[in-house]
Amino acid sequence: MTTAPLSAETKKNFQYASTATVATQMLKRGFRNTAINGIKPLNPKAARLVGPAFTLRYIPAREDLDQPPKPGDPPSAQRAAIEETPAGHVLVIGTEGIVKSGTLGDILALRLKVRGVAGVVSDGAMRDTPVIGRMDFPVYCTAAAAPPSMNSLHAVEVQTPLGIRGVPVYPGDVIVADEDGAIVVPRHLADEVARDSFEQERLEKFVAIRIGQGREIPGTYPPNDQTKADYAAWIEAGEPETWPK
Amino acid sequence: MTTAPLSAETKKNFQYASTATVATQMLKRGFRNTAINGIKPLNPKAARLVGPAFTLRYIPAREDLDQPPKPGDPPSAQRAAIEETPAGHVLVIGTEGIVKSGTLGDILALRLKVRGVAGVVSDGAMRDTPVIGRMDFPVYCTAAAAPPSMNSLHAVEVQTPLGIRGVPVYPGDVIVADEDGAIVVPRHLADEVARDSFEQERLEKFVAIRIGQGREIPGTYPPNDQTKADYAAWIEAGEPETWPK
Amino acid sequence: MTTAPLSAETKKNFQYASTATVATQMLKRGFRNTAINGIKPLNPKAARLVGPAFTLRYIPAREDLDQPPKPGDPPSAQRAAIEETPAGHVLVIGTEGIVKSGTLGDILALRLKVRGVAGVVSDGAMRDTPVIGRMDFPVYCTAAAAPPSMNSLHAVEVQTPLGIRGVPVYPGDVIVADEDGAIVVPRHLADEVARDSFEQERLEKFVAIRIGQGREIPGTYPPNDQTKADYAAWIEAGEPETWPK
Amino acid sequence: MTTAPLSAETKKNFQYASTATVATQMLKRGFRNTAINGIKPLNPKAARLVGPAFTLRYIPAREDLDQPPKPGDPPSAQRAAIEETPAGHVLVIGTEGIVKSGTLGDILALRLKVRGVAGVVSDGAMRDTPVIGRMDFPVYCTAAAAPPSMNSLHAVEVQTPLGIRGVPVYPGDVIVADEDGAIVVPRHLADEVARDSFEQERLEKFVAIRIGQGREIPGTYPPNDQTKADYAAWIEAGEPETWPK
Amino acid sequence: MTTAPLSAETKKNFQYASTATVATQMLKRGFRNTAINGIKPLNPKAARLVGPAFTLRYIPAREDLDQPPKPGDPPSAQRAAIEETPAGHVLVIGTEGIVKSGTLGDILALRLKVRGVAGVVSDGAMRDTPVIGRMDFPVYCTAAAAPPSMNSLHAVEVQTPLGIRGVPVYPGDVIVADEDGAIVVPRHLADEVARDSFEQERLEKFVAIRIGQGREIPGTYPPNDQTKADYAAWIEAGEPETWPK
Amino acid sequence: MTTAPLSAETKKNFQYASTATVATQMLKRGFRNTAINGIKPLNPKAARLVGPAFTLRYIPAREDLDQPPKPGDPPSAQRAAIEETPAGHVLVIGTEGIVKSGTLGDILALRLKVRGVAGVVSDGAMRDTPVIGRMDFPVYCTAAAAPPSMNSLHAVEVQTPLGIRGVPVYPGDVIVADEDGAIVVPRHLADEVARDSFEQERLEKFVAIRIGQGREIPGTYPPNDQTKADYAAWIEAGEPETWPK
Repeated sequence: MTTAPLSAETKKNFQYASTATVATQMLKRGFRNTAINGIKPLNPKAARLVGPAFTLRYIPAREDLDQPPKPGDPPSAQRAAIEETPAGHVLVIGTEGIVKSGTLGDILALRLKVRGVAGVVSDGAMRDTPVIGRMDFPVYCTAAAAPPSMNSLHAVEVQTPLGIRGVPVYPGDVIVADEDGAIVVPRHLADEVARDSFEQERLEKFVAIRIGQGREIPGTYPPNDQTKADYAAWIEAGEPETWPK
Repeated sequence: MTTAPLSAETKKNFQYASTATVATQMLKRGFRNTAINGIKPLNPKAARLVGPAFTLRYIPAREDLDQPPKPGDPPSAQRAAIEETPAGHVLVIGTEGIVKSGTLGDILALRLKVRGVAGVVSDGAMRDTPVIGRMDFPVYCTAAAAPPSMNSLHAVEVQTPLGIRGVPVYPGDVIVADEDGAIVVPRHLADEVARDSFEQERLEKFVAIRIGQGREIPGTYPPNDQTKADYAAWIEAGEPETWPK
Repeated sequence: MTTAPLSAETKKNFQYASTATVATQMLKRGFRNTAINGIKPLNPKAARLVGPAFTLRYIPAREDLDQPPKPGDPPSAQRAAIEETPAGHVLVIGTEGIVKSGTLGDILALRLKVRGVAGVVSDGAMRDTPVIGRMDFPVYCTAAAAPPSMNSLHAVEVQTPLGIRGVPVYPGDVIVADEDGAIVVPRHLADEVARDSFEQERLEKFVAIRIGQGREIPGTYPPNDQTKADYAAWIEAGEPETWPK
Repeated sequence: MTTAPLSAETKKNFQYASTATVATQMLKRGFRNTAINGIKPLNPKAARLVGPAFTLRYIPAREDLDQPPKPGDPPSAQRAAIEETPAGHVLVIGTEGIVKSGTLGDILALRLKVRGVAGVVSDGAMRDTPVIGRMDFPVYCTAAAAPPSMNSLHAVEVQTPLGIRGVPVYPGDVIVADEDGAIVVPRHLADEVARDSFEQERLEKFVAIRIGQGREIPGTYPPNDQTKADYAAWIEAGEPETWPK
Repeated sequence: MTTAPLSAETKKNFQYASTATVATQMLKRGFRNTAINGIKPLNPKAARLVGPAFTLRYIPAREDLDQPPKPGDPPSAQRAAIEETPAGHVLVIGTEGIVKSGTLGDILALRLKVRGVAGVVSDGAMRDTPVIGRMDFPVYCTAAAAPPSMNSLHAVEVQTPLGIRGVPVYPGDVIVADEDGAIVVPRHLADEVARDSFEQERLEKFVAIRIGQGREIPGTYPPNDQTKADYAAWIEAGEPETWPK
Repeated sequence: MTTAPLSAETKKNFQYASTATVATQMLKRGFRNTAINGIKPLNPKAARLVGPAFTLRYIPAREDLDQPPKPGDPPSAQRAAIEETPAGHVLVIGTEGIVKSGTLGDILALRLKVRGVAGVVSDGAMRDTPVIGRMDFPVYCTAAAAPPSMNSLHAVEVQTPLGIRGVPVYPGDVIVADEDGAIVVPRHLADEVARDSFEQERLEKFVAIRIGQGREIPGTYPPNDQTKADYAAWIEAGEPETWPK
């Protein structure tokens, strides 16, 4: 089922790991095209984002169909996405790269936040970015644009597969995002990728301590037997910020 | 109904008019974003294309899902499009601009031609272009690429709205294409746009004769009353290539 | 007259409204191509910009004509723009998208600021961006570039119509800019667009309060009769930050 | 004076030389940015183009100003360019790279041809390219587009300096174009560049004969004393296609 | 050894197969990034190209180092490539995508042809394209540009690995090119990929005959047992153009 | 020798001057293509960067050669660059513009910092940008990307000439970078360019004071005799922030 929530452990593991680490785990499984690059969080302090994808697809606007909203308009796929994206999910919006209009503005973003949605990832633009950029709500996009969506875009459907900047996203895939961009993890791989990402991230924390102390890369990263033993001792000691003291 | 054929008269009118003329008629109705630019026919001698759109949508490939075809594979949306596009229709293929793989090769293009499909328009690439380029079958695309579609693309669905190079295409819209590109005419406007395009095209044929004779643009184009009268006489005379003699 | 100042009320209204709101008002009047996207203010704290456009046009440099400045050089169109842009106006600089050189540096920007010019909008680059980025002076551009303008650019003329990232700008048009980009309002529409933008912005402030309280989008935005009545009461109460208490 | 014709000798020299040769002569004089790349002649058989530039500048269209032409419209800068470009001159059209509409169609191109204009160079698109592509009239552009100019473009002025794909063009500069693109020669250098281009071209014709005979590049190109002597003899013999026999 | 020639059989097999077929064989071996797209042969009649790569790498020019050639200049990497590329090899030229200058002109191309080099592939431009386009010599590039290479480019080294439009090329890799672009086959895989490409191409010739006769795609492509039996009979019959008669 | 350190005075002069000033000095010497635009420091507080270039060149990855690192892998050119870039030098990384993978992550960046390297400039992406962005270490790049380098890149060689966004970089050239981008100064010109940049920067500091006081541009910049005299007095007075008091 495409709107199933993540297990608490998988969510925790993905929140611990950087996207750099998750991307390495995906490469180890033969996936080279999982990173959505070129997107940035509007609020750098609200960058960390983990959750299953709920998708919304836009096409270009047509002058007769796409007009400023009036009371009584039939519900659009955009409005469906706003009210139907489950709490904890990530609304992934595909525009085929059109950035002449915002895909969402501050009021719709606020509604998503109030409903408990985890965040938004789009290959398009957002409007009202000065306001969204101050919300405690992760919104990733490629640009800012003042015009409302119907200026240049038409919402077609929700929950179909999308391409986002050349990366496929299927409903239910797990989105993990930070300032490096977003990684798309196919849902059936989520638990194992999350678990291995946690392990790799923890090792790299230790490695960074060692490199900061002046160790050379060879022997430290990847770790040789001595470094592995030191790493085990460091975990046992409670993973302190400095080590050995 | 989205797969209804065009009337014989509308088809004839669109085949008479250039896309430049059809685009002018669309502008007169307030549509400024109907022209798919940047596509070219692989065979310049088989460029003229008119028909209702049947759509196929691709997203980027994923390494585990998109592999070389094997006997026994379940039918894909691509294969559905090949067998289901009605005779006289135009297969419109959206790729979100991915040109790393061909959307079709010579064998599938040949199958479409044999089935009586009018032609193909894609924002992506074609493969086997040396062969398709010699077929008497209009195939418009933006590039050539040798790899098979599953190298970089995954067919998702047929008969949903698409964006093609920033222009919306709904199933059943009429596609009119020549070397200037393709115009997308919303289906409910097709008959009147076709009729007025015929009239404009015929007038411009006469105007071109006059300009070739050394007339100035003012008074000739747009026509003043004298030019209009001459035009009426020219029609009456059977629309000869040279005029008055 | 192309250098007439804005009325105090129109200026106040535009300063109250976001560019997202002004763009919606333009769409309501049938204008879909008024937003200059992809420009950013060098100093995010000095982003809000309103004023009539004074234009400067650059073309690419030619090696023999464009050399480092020497005392005694004849005055250039660039220097004319620096000294002639009226106080309260926005200097709009068109480069046809060339970002290899800065269109202005810190000294010329400072001169504009001292002269009371409202700010600068360019489709090109600025140089000395670390310094300009700390000025209390709105400068919008697409890039930073260290080389002086004559490295790659030649100033041709002031006060002729320009295209800025695909949007037409006529001298005297009103520029309204914030972090979402800039909107170009034709001068003859400025007063009414400003007035309606004020009204829309105020309504959306109230709507945001309601959405933050958990109201659904339908009925709240666009407002139904109950929301309209609540909105009227909120205005009467002095537009408080929270409502009803 | 910016519409002075070329001398017969300079015209003849430029028609003899390739743009590759003219570009080399410009580089020898310190000009590295004189080549307009990325433009192609619509009719490859009518590619050779030499003449002084007459310029026309477009900006993006605005919905209220740019509508389909009606009888009685005031004359536009576009129509001025059509009637005023002197015979023997090249109409150079700048669009800031907008290719969504054609800058000219077949009727206006035909009028230019009838008036004796040498040809057209544009950084934009042309419409009716199937027709223009069969005219004996050199039209260089970057794309084809069916919509009429006012769909996306507004003609502003004639005979001001332009940038064409990053290259400056001043009214009166000499345009020399072939399938490699166009070279812009500042007018005051035209006679000497033409003369030296003729000389270089003639030498390279001889060099090509020698290389075709199996000579090595060193000693032949650039020519050593022996090659120079052979070259002088070849000129004396009437510049035959094969040499020595 | 990086300049070893291909075996006669491998060369014959690659000359029989289309790049579309070779790309499919590479995908079957897990290689998704082997196709150099966006390059075209200057002479469509001289498009077919097969041979091992000999590489030449350019970087951007610097004004003091890169001047018009003078007699007595030290030999450059460009001239080394012209004289050292072995007969039967393909000169692969990397420019990092710079198309402002030609990488080669007609005289150097002619020298390569005379020396027996198989052809040229470049991600840059060529100059003198009207002349090269008439040679019986396959030259693939992305653009035409009149200026000589030193206008914008500096030749650095031969026979080091390159990236060409995002595809890695190592000296000695086999280049197979036609109008669909070029495929880069790592040298150690060349013999088996060539052999399997021959087999696939031959099968697809038969399949195309069947599809032209009205067969459906399913069962024909990929072939079922009946089609395989028919194919075997067709081979036995000498691979006639029409079948069964 | 390509890894010679800068003199203390040259380093001090370059650290005093902005890149805008250094670019002007280069233009005065006839160099128009020395500015690497479009790169940004990950940590804006650690933007100032001066040092000789040590180069590393990447090409695109190949699936069989570029796999996740394993203990026992042979040393790569990337690892050589990490351990061999001399203290005080700038590691310049060329990727031909590929931004799908990070060229370095936080651990390798930390190792460079610990070793005393001055900083990094790349036309590619970095990974772990949230961590590197907090280091007191100048790292300039064009993008962020989570995947490790071998996902899309292969390190080929160190200390060969590179092109970085169209600008040539030779080993040993001096890199001067700030938020406007980076300037590449050929090594043999470094001392004089640094000295003249110091002088120009000091004059412009004085000019900015004057302009802030309301002086017009003419007479102040470039300085006339009076301004020159005032400038001399200001230097004598110890270059105070405000002047004359």
